Amino acid sequence: MNVSIIAVGTELLFGQTVNTNATYISNQLNLMGFNVMYHHVVGDNPGRLKELIKSTFTDNDIIIFTGGLGPTQDDLTKEIVAEAMGVELYFDERCYAKIKSYFDDRNRIMPENNRKQAYIPVGAEVFHNEAGTAPAFGIEKDGKCAICLPGPPREMKWLFNNCVTDYLKKFSSKEMYYRVIRTIGIGESDLETKLLPVINNQVDPTVATYAKEGECTLRVASQRETEAEAQLAVDNMVSEIEKLVGNYIYSFDDEELSEVVVKQLKEKELKLSSAESCTGGLFASCITDVPGASSVFSYGFVTYSAAAKSEILDVDIEVIENHSVVSAEVAILMAKGAQSAANSDISVSVTGYAGPEADPGRDNGNAYIGYSCSERFGEKCGYVEINTKRSDRKWNRNYFKLRMLLVVYEILNGKLS
Amino acid sequence: MNVSIIAVGTELLFGQTVNTNATYISNQLNLMGFNVMYHHVVGDNPGRLKELIKSTFTDNDIIIFTGGLGPTQDDLTKEIVAEAMGVELYFDERCYAKIKSYFDDRNRIMPENNRKQAYIPVGAEVFHNEAGTAPAFGIEKDGKCAICLPGPPREMKWLFNNCVTDYLKKFSSKEMYYRVIRTIGIGESDLETKLLPVINNQVDPTVATYAKEGECTLRVASQRETEAEAQLAVDNMVSEIEKLVGNYIYSFDDEELSEVVVKQLKEKELKLSSAESCTGGLFASCITDVPGASSVFSYGFVTYSAAAKSEILDVDIEVIENHSVVSAEVAILMAKGAQSAANSDISVSVTGYAGPEADPGRDNGNAYIGYSCSERFGEKCGYVEINTKRSDRKWNRNYFKLRMLLVVYEILNGKLS
Repeated sequence: MNVSIIAVGTELLFGQTVNTNATYISNQLNLMGFNVMYHHVVGDNPGRLKELIKSTFTDNDIIIFTGGLGPTQDDLTKEIVAEAMGVELYFDERCYAKIKSYFDDRNRIMPENNRKQAYIPVGAEVFHNEAGTAPAFGIEKDGKCAICLPGPPREMKWLFNNCVTDYLKKFSSKEMYYRVIRTIGIGESDLETKLLPVINNQVDPTVATYAKEGECTLRVASQRETEAEAQLAVDNMVSEIEKLVGNYIYSFDDEELSEVVVKQLKEKELKLSSAESCTGGLFASCITDVPGASSVFSYGFVTYSAAAKSEILDVDIEVIENHSVVSAEVAILMAKGAQSAANSDISVSVTGYAGPEADPGRDNGNAYIGYSCSERFGEKCGYVEINTKRSDRKWNRNYFKLRMLLVVYEILNGKLS
Repeated sequence: MNVSIIAVGTELLFGQTVNTNATYISNQLNLMGFNVMYHHVVGDNPGRLKELIKSTFTDNDIIIFTGGLGPTQDDLTKEIVAEAMGVELYFDERCYAKIKSYFDDRNRIMPENNRKQAYIPVGAEVFHNEAGTAPAFGIEKDGKCAICLPGPPREMKWLFNNCVTDYLKKFSSKEMYYRVIRTIGIGESDLETKLLPVINNQVDPTVATYAKEGECTLRVASQRETEAEAQLAVDNMVSEIEKLVGNYIYSFDDEELSEVVVKQLKEKELKLSSAESCTGGLFASCITDVPGASSVFSYGFVTYSAAAKSEILDVDIEVIENHSVVSAEVAILMAKGAQSAANSDISVSVTGYAGPEADPGRDNGNAYIGYSCSERFGEKCGYVEINTKRSDRKWNRNYFKLRMLLVVYEILNGKLS
């Protein structure tokens, strides 16, 4: 089945909004086994939209529209789609009641123009929107199908997951199952090379790799007659992959490394603390972004000067003078200082040059990650040196943070010698 | 002049990559006075790309292509565009030398398939790519123009800014000038209402507003015969806007609030420190993301438990017990503790419920921002209460951080009573 996505909205053509809806929907459609043929973006212009629908239906069975379902005069997707499908609109009392109650529930008066949203093409299946006011719908006629969803990503996603996925099942004879594996510490091409024995000439399950800043994600997906068969095929493939690259895998369930670290700390009833120089709080922020992090992380120190490192973390100023502030020695003392102040089981630190300007003779992207552990880990301490040789401040800060997470993960999993 | 953008790449249709290139190019084209008619995305498929080019040229004068200029067999944009324009490709020695030297400069051996990138359509103007290996180009024939750019955003942007902008000037008889104003503390619709006297029926300069999480941005743009005229028109409009909403404006040069705060702290030779609970380091991270922040910010404390607040920031544990840890009293003591530990001129703190689960009887989104200043600001201290009533953790954390920045900005500019 060929599917295309048409986003309607002049704000996209002005470059004010990124068309993330098309990306999200494409990802979901591919997982369900549909071929996505085109993404199109068109402004709030009836003539051009009509032409685009016509030409898109020549080689597509299904078009998914986003945007243009709002209450204003500009919003015309529904009207043009109905016209293109050759049907009228009718006033849907149930939709109207839902829209009205959306406002009532919030003690707000429904503006008169929201009535417009209760008009639905004759013969359409309505998707009631619990994330906003615009009802969405799917309509089939003469072997062609149009699905209209609102533009705001939150509403679109709610409707896609709760209504569209089921609606689309009738167009797909197969069942889909997939798992997403996260790896760290190996580049994309090395990962692909190691996986060649299982992915070469592989038709189903498919294995796709995606790289993102120091991490690599694998999606293993299968489409079979039944979900159980698909799941079995995926699970077998995942076992094969684990045999080949298991050492680099930190999640079999598409979790962030920070989530895995917080989960493991909770399970093991351990406390973490941090001392950051060049990342300036990014590590602490990343950990505390995970709901429930408060049970494992209470102390984070940002010490952005030599004086702060000395006063707050008790780093010997002579060590800073002798070894420079960006050194393994200082990184370890920072970690020790934080561990002692926080009385934590694991403490991790960083000192480095994020860019754009390192000190003379030093590289941008050079950093030392220090760690210090309680007796539960044999009072182990040490450091990891990094040198990205990049000058991109944001990139380096993010990468250093990721490597700090990795150090904690490795300590937790006995992988750090 | 009507322009459309065609992105070529199956990864976009798989939902692996977001088409940010189209957004960037659209934004630039609109600023230059072009009408952007469509964005299209098509896979690495010669037949469909050819059809799409044909249909797009029926109502467009210019097509800008991104992607498909790489060295592999999949990369076919250049070949299909040449065919659609009815010209042959030739081997461009100068391009070849540039590609070769790109590898030589990096002590790498040029793979044989990179030779493919040196073929250029006859009659095209080559844009030499200093950010990568793929040469880009523009070609005009029979009143139609095709511009081909590589897909990686960094290369695309470099070429757009350094080559395409000049190349496109011949299609535009007018000169463009614009300024971007940033505001905070006023909603988009209120801002528009206040600006009605100057923006109603306004043809040139145009004033566009964009809302983003608690902030609002205004773009004032003019197109005139000369740049001087356009600049004068924009500057006059900016003065009018300043009269109406000057109190909400924090930047006339499209800076982030964190950049403005760091700049002003530097100018005034002031030191800032922070004490964070629910934002967990996000504020410190945002400040230290600004290059050169080390001269104004050295001490950030993340105290994510009552004990940490008491031990590190010297917050009286009785105050926490009597007023609860999320209270104005605790926020102020946190700020005082950080100010004293850091010996800073301004200290800002936050304690609150970011979500998803507030304590019983309390709202998600409720937070107190405390501040404490040195004698340079009359030893002023106080707090600001926030209640977003949202449960979205990420949203709240980001909003609290923004409001902390705003408090510092208001202290610096004498706006906090």
